[in-house]
Amino acid sequence: MKALYYDGTKAVYREDLPVPVYCEGHSLIKILIANICNTDREILRGYRPDFRGIMGHEFVGEVVESDDKSLIGRIVVGELNEGCGSCIYCRTGREKHCLSRKVIGMSTDGCFAEYMTLATRLIHPVPEGLTPEQAVFTEPLAAAIEITKQVHIDPSANAAIIGDGRLAFMIAQVLSLSGISLTVVGKHKEKLELFKPYAEIAHLDQYYDGETTRPLTADECFEYVVEASGNESGLSLALNIVRKMGTIILKSTYAGKTAIDMSQIPVNEITIVGSRCGPFEPALRFLKEGKVSFPDVELYDLKDYEKAFSSNAFKAGFRIS
Amino acid sequence: MKALYYDGTKAVYREDLPVPVYCEGHSLIKILIANICNTDREILRGYRPDFRGIMGHEFVGEVVESDDKSLIGRIVVGELNEGCGSCIYCRTGREKHCLSRKVIGMSTDGCFAEYMTLATRLIHPVPEGLTPEQAVFTEPLAAAIEITKQVHIDPSANAAIIGDGRLAFMIAQVLSLSGISLTVVGKHKEKLELFKPYAEIAHLDQYYDGETTRPLTADECFEYVVEASGNESGLSLALNIVRKMGTIILKSTYAGKTAIDMSQIPVNEITIVGSRCGPFEPALRFLKEGKVSFPDVELYDLKDYEKAFSSNAFKAGFRIS
Repeated sequence: MKALYYDGTKAVYREDLPVPVYCEGHSLIKILIANICNTDREILRGYRPDFRGIMGHEFVGEVVESDDKSLIGRIVVGELNEGCGSCIYCRTGREKHCLSRKVIGMSTDGCFAEYMTLATRLIHPVPEGLTPEQAVFTEPLAAAIEITKQVHIDPSANAAIIGDGRLAFMIAQVLSLSGISLTVVGKHKEKLELFKPYAEIAHLDQYYDGETTRPLTADECFEYVVEASGNESGLSLALNIVRKMGTIILKSTYAGKTAIDMSQIPVNEITIVGSRCGPFEPALRFLKEGKVSFPDVELYDLKDYEKAFSSNAFKAGFRIS
Repeated sequence: MKALYYDGTKAVYREDLPVPVYCEGHSLIKILIANICNTDREILRGYRPDFRGIMGHEFVGEVVESDDKSLIGRIVVGELNEGCGSCIYCRTGREKHCLSRKVIGMSTDGCFAEYMTLATRLIHPVPEGLTPEQAVFTEPLAAAIEITKQVHIDPSANAAIIGDGRLAFMIAQVLSLSGISLTVVGKHKEKLELFKPYAEIAHLDQYYDGETTRPLTADECFEYVVEASGNESGLSLALNIVRKMGTIILKSTYAGKTAIDMSQIPVNEITIVGSRCGPFEPALRFLKEGKVSFPDVELYDLKDYEKAFSSNAFKAGFRIS
């Protein structure tokens, strides 16, 4: 079959890979659409040096073989982390943190291929009325919803999102559903335009430098600050604009150590919540009910992967079947 | 009156200070016992360079004048932060974070004196049956209770406390009341002995170095880690021994910036909760019901303040009236 394979240094388009064989508890999925996540780009930059295999973890597909016969023929999406099933994390609802988990597209074969196998329990049927082009946003949208799973959002409070990228845009839509007063702090004028239906717009240089710009007053500060800029300085900014006893939600990961004035955290009783992958079912409901919406995905053929990876579209991906 | 005064560089014992005059909404308190907090020692090291005044914020006293006549003659303790009453923090139950608050012994006259005035709303009568020597632990005990005000403690989980000092000892007693499995990680053999009725004992070198000691397994890691060591390396250790999706409670403050691998926080979905002063009423209930107890306070005369400040007792303080 055709697939995009990571050989340890680069992506390679191949047509010689065998269709995977599904084993107990798993299903064989024919991939329709697969989206490129920023993590896929990071893999090409060396984020997973030990991984060799088919890339990709955001997909919509059709189940062709399964031990759950009711799934056969269904259009589905799927979670990426398959835990061992027996450790403390798997036994306490934290399968995605299992230390010996398989992660599709990162430690085991992923979805940039004609076929993929996945643990049947990780598969979620796509509701009627949702197109594959919409449903393919389920996984990144779930990561935004993880915030409201972890943190109670007081709708009468205010929140800032630092960052104006795709994840920030999903977070803005999800948080705006709580009724909260929302401000997005970004640096790209064009991208910020997209947020106007959901949030006040603020440019990074209004807040950025705690030294030359005036500090925010207590009233101007935010009860919640979501750091989704992907930039190391985002956390310092978050600490500057969060209210005392407020909450910072960290979605961005940065390599290496960051120097932070940690004393602010106990003195101001700040809470910092690290946040990663999220629940699929509320994401599918939001998409089905039209409560969130995204620009179209730009879809490429698998062999045009270089064009796809360098696309500036809101989301780029592959139309596979 | 007699008092211990901070002159900007050092403590000065004085007998020439006037008895303060109470104004509207305040009470005049005759101080019986006042304890030394580590913050008082930090003031002598330059923590509050702009402060000039009477030191001290942990006390038990007798109300001698008050607009609330029912308080006169009562033995009381009192909170240290008096907010402006009108800002966003004062209006939302966060008076201790008011940006223009007065703090006794840190920005306004404190309790190392024969008399002190305090906002009447900050005064808490000591329940019958509690001696002043017991009640004087209310303020530091409240800081330990702040943890259970901020974070839900699952009694079927496990927790580690990093640190074997006074605050750690109060936290150990408070957390043990939840029923949780508790481990204290410290470096002073003698101090650790004190924790044995409440917790498992672990020496810091068992866990300390993530490089030469083996990492803890998922089962050995802790759902909650309280950092109360007062040491900069405590947070790194906490990140090494906390479970994924676990909670770190930061009680220690360190001056300056700390370099931390922040990516662990989103990747492992760690929550960090900064924690400071706490509620007095549950502290008074715990003390009254004998649910927590502490070694005796070592009490000195005000003019022997140098001896008192260098005491190695669990708590040292002043017997004033």
